Amino acid sequence: MPTSTLLNDVNIEAVGSLIDAVRSDPEAAATTWRASITWNGAFRTEARVRGFDPIQSDEPIALGGSDTAPNPVEQVLAALGNCLAVGYAANASARGIELRDLRVDVSGALDLHAFLGLREGHAGFDDIRVIVHLDATADEQQIADLHEHVLRTSPVGHTLGAAVPISVDLAAG
Amino acid sequence: MPTSTLLNDVNIEAVGSLIDAVRSDPEAAATTWRASITWNGAFRTEARVRGFDPIQSDEPIALGGSDTAPNPVEQVLAALGNCLAVGYAANASARGIELRDLRVDVSGALDLHAFLGLREGHAGFDDIRVIVHLDATADEQQIADLHEHVLRTSPVGHTLGAAVPISVDLAAG
Repeated sequence: MPTSTLLNDVNIEAVGSLIDAVRSDPEAAATTWRASITWNGAFRTEARVRGFDPIQSDEPIALGGSDTAPNPVEQVLAALGNCLAVGYAANASARGIELRDLRVDVSGALDLHAFLGLREGHAGFDDIRVIVHLDATADEQQIADLHEHVLRTSPVGHTLGAAVPISVDLAAG
Repeated sequence: MPTSTLLNDVNIEAVGSLIDAVRSDPEAAATTWRASITWNGAFRTEARVRGFDPIQSDEPIALGGSDTAPNPVEQVLAALGNCLAVGYAANASARGIELRDLRVDVSGALDLHAFLGLREGHAGFDDIRVIVHLDATADEQQIADLHEHVLRTSPVGHTLGAAVPISVDLAAG
């Protein structure tokens, strides 16, 4: 059996198989993702996703927490950076571009007035800025094309960049 | 020295101090949050926030990953649930409501066509649904008021429910 050498250690054939599956059955693209959160006292919570170790959450001391873990808004920035990074890894690999190094720095500005109940209105991030440090075997135009494609297809980028309908209901009883 | 009994183990005085600080200096409400992501090969990445253990990220096998951690869209749902949970804990405590139990279940529907490059358009969640399981020493109206206040002030809820401006730039060089 020949062993294939994986560019960037990425199993691009799995993505190709999924694309074929979705082409032959568009319903296969309809996915649902889940997280279940439990409160552990004070501002400490944890989110379980499938069978993985829970994602711990807390708030800084100044916000009344015990500062044992990143807080939820930091987790959003982490998710965006993780999504963009996997986007570069996947699409670089599909284009035959070898990544030597990839780092993504994310920052977001948030005014606490609405969160603290001192003002009505937007309580979320006012803007989010990302700087991507990419070292790859590709010329400037290839990198620019890769970058543009990643931004056009990022699930977390689009989730944050669009107004997503959210329903929050109390369970009966 | 008297020791104060903390309702829900929450240090609500710290939140009060922050509110006072912001009232006397509105600039104190302008916060910036950060995460730094590194790529670890394949679709494995990790996000560092301050000095905490990094938030690991991967993709399921069917999406070309090695399935070692929640993926970025699951992390977004986790962040939303963690944010809502801390919102209930904080505002229940401020209102003198004791929480006996709190769980938050989050799910989100996402069509993979745009992510896979098979269609232009929205690659993010189409909608997100949250069910809150709240067991607390309060009547129905108090719970309804608490719920409404949490939704009106949730930083992650508002970040996902609004279109946040995002800039993603490649570092020079």
